[in-house]
Amino acid sequence: MKKSNIFENIPTHIPEELFEDILIKKGIKIERIISKGHTTDKFEWYEQKSNEWVIVLKGEAILSFENASDIRLKEGDYLHIDAYIKHRVSWTKLESETIWLAIHYT
Amino acid sequence: MKKSNIFENIPTHIPEELFEDILIKKGIKIERIISKGHTTDKFEWYEQKSNEWVIVLKGEAILSFENASDIRLKEGDYLHIDAYIKHRVSWTKLESETIWLAIHYT
Repeated sequence: MKKSNIFENIPTHIPEELFEDILIKKGIKIERIISKGHTTDKFEWYEQKSNEWVIVLKGEAILSFENASDIRLKEGDYLHIDAYIKHRVSWTKLESETIWLAIHYT
Repeated sequence: MKKSNIFENIPTHIPEELFEDILIKKGIKIERIISKGHTTDKFEWYEQKSNEWVIVLKGEAILSFENASDIRLKEGDYLHIDAYIKHRVSWTKLESETIWLAIHYT
């Protein structure tokens, strides 16, 4: 039985948004995402086959959707994104890391 | 699309450990647990049919296991508990809430 900490082992240099698998099992993936001013590429959308439950644990971000209003997420805010809902990260804090925990499931 | 915040809507009075379902779908349950000095009853064990990935988001706690050393969890610490592993919460902070996020999956 080994613990880890979601706020530790943050690289000092984050050239691109960082996706790290914490757990992958049949039908479920738990992932840590670290952003630092990163956004989804312009005109790009995430359109995932799996459902996603996502929470911002540190920092701040704005999620945009094809067919819904932007949602600003601060620490502790969480959201469910159904499969195939087009969304993108349109803003994240530049001065410090934004740490996301995402649960993908089918 | 509606956001919620994991650190909000904390009852002022928490007579017993509080378990709240955030999401329940086939094969997965996401749950918020709030403790405030609570522990698992003496001589009782959790022995779950599902696997659990659990993280302490606020506060502090100690998990005990039948066949392994105690693990002290502070903010951000996470742990995987396989199905059927006997465990109990042997201590949580009394002065302030400990907020857990638990992902149960089969």
